[in-house]
Amino acid sequence: MPDRRLERLEAELVRPPFHAWLRPEPVSATNDTVEIRLPIRPEMAGGTEPFFVHGGIIAALIDLTGYAAAACATGCPTPTLTLQIDYLKPAFGSMLLACGVVRQKGKRNARVDVEIIAEGRIIALGRGTFAIMEDGQ
Amino acid sequence: MPDRRLERLEAELVRPPFHAWLRPEPVSATNDTVEIRLPIRPEMAGGTEPFFVHGGIIAALIDLTGYAAAACATGCPTPTLTLQIDYLKPAFGSMLLACGVVRQKGKRNARVDVEIIAEGRIIALGRGTFAIMEDGQ
Amino acid sequence: MPDRRLERLEAELVRPPFHAWLRPEPVSATNDTVEIRLPIRPEMAGGTEPFFVHGGIIAALIDLTGYAAAACATGCPTPTLTLQIDYLKPAFGSMLLACGVVRQKGKRNARVDVEIIAEGRIIALGRGTFAIMEDGQ
Amino acid sequence: MPDRRLERLEAELVRPPFHAWLRPEPVSATNDTVEIRLPIRPEMAGGTEPFFVHGGIIAALIDLTGYAAAACATGCPTPTLTLQIDYLKPAFGSMLLACGVVRQKGKRNARVDVEIIAEGRIIALGRGTFAIMEDGQ
Repeated sequence: MPDRRLERLEAELVRPPFHAWLRPEPVSATNDTVEIRLPIRPEMAGGTEPFFVHGGIIAALIDLTGYAAAACATGCPTPTLTLQIDYLKPAFGSMLLACGVVRQKGKRNARVDVEIIAEGRIIALGRGTFAIMEDGQ
Repeated sequence: MPDRRLERLEAELVRPPFHAWLRPEPVSATNDTVEIRLPIRPEMAGGTEPFFVHGGIIAALIDLTGYAAAACATGCPTPTLTLQIDYLKPAFGSMLLACGVVRQKGKRNARVDVEIIAEGRIIALGRGTFAIMEDGQ
Repeated sequence: MPDRRLERLEAELVRPPFHAWLRPEPVSATNDTVEIRLPIRPEMAGGTEPFFVHGGIIAALIDLTGYAAAACATGCPTPTLTLQIDYLKPAFGSMLLACGVVRQKGKRNARVDVEIIAEGRIIALGRGTFAIMEDGQ
Repeated sequence: MPDRRLERLEAELVRPPFHAWLRPEPVSATNDTVEIRLPIRPEMAGGTEPFFVHGGIIAALIDLTGYAAAACATGCPTPTLTLQIDYLKPAFGSMLLACGVVRQKGKRNARVDVEIIAEGRIIALGRGTFAIMEDGQ
């Protein structure tokens, strides 16, 4: 069953055209969690000396991780309604790890928490509400 | 004086390496507002049929617009502390317009509201808190 | 028609038992705005010397104002899904004014902005998502 | 040492005049967590049939719990800058438990997560940024 979740996560990450540039990679998926890895390239920088990841890249990673967790948990499209991001530290290093956890799966909405880790430390927190769209809506 | 503000906005938009890919364009700047335009390219899509802009692109645009408004208003680096995004509608069309308004300029923090407009309609709302970093901090 | 809106707002403010203690007062209502006044009493203080209003009172006022604006605009119960509050300044004085504006009225959700004014200055900003519950849900 | 933390928490909860009406009770405190209990009284209701706690009471409890966690962790006044609240379920029952966890303790700001539990289930999530004010500021 975890394998099917991982296949679903892979499918979610491949679909959006923007991801062909961003290149997020599936790591793991369970009923209510996903892990996604983002290799950092120089063109994702917010600044150099020292190099750090642009906040917009982190925001995009939080958005897509929350979406993926909600979509994998519900089997439905789950467009983002609201997203809250707390930036804790500059994101150094060459890889970001995003961990998404579904906190609630309701009839209409799912709530997902996301943590972004760089070099072993949490550098940003995300929390989102995602609309559960059944087929035909 | 508006011209100097616009020069400052241009400088803010040119600096981050990520912007060489994203390509946000300065439109206007006053003491407490900025307008930024983002031409949409196919690789920024969240989906096709119909084509719509990826939520992560919108989040990145809100982040950089809030930063630019805060930085232009204070003359300091203003890293994002928190960001709240409300997605109202799918973003269709080939251009996004981002309007940032400084709601508060305090000693330590600035608060900025951002509206994202596509095809003449507000499609997302953003609100952020930005830390005002004086030189040497 | 505004009178009917105001009657609806009055009804919303009278109903919850907590409001018998808090005592918010209707000021005005239109299709997509409400204004509510909150006389401040000593037992609402966060601190004294100088006296300022407790942040929890401000949060409660933002919640009920957003609810009232959404409920008046839709004619439905509209429980709060998410609420974002930005505290800008300490709230001095003996009266708070809350202004709610519906930013979006969708099929499932309404988005409302709230500004809290004390002594003529905006001291807090609120933004919320409210679920539109039709009868029988 | 935990006892001193608990004394500090007790002092924080006694000080604001509004708490004489709200009556939050200290349960536990460590270096970066606090637990606070709120006995629910009929005048805190948002509605009856069935009885549920008003969202404004929950918002106030999240605000004061975040403040208390930040103040206990830093030993400083920590006014709330931003607060994000996600309401998950109606709050039934006669007691709320609020659990605050400091997620970051920086130079200027602390970030705190709060969970609100009623009848053994999480009914609301909170996240806030609190300004660390040293003496004399």
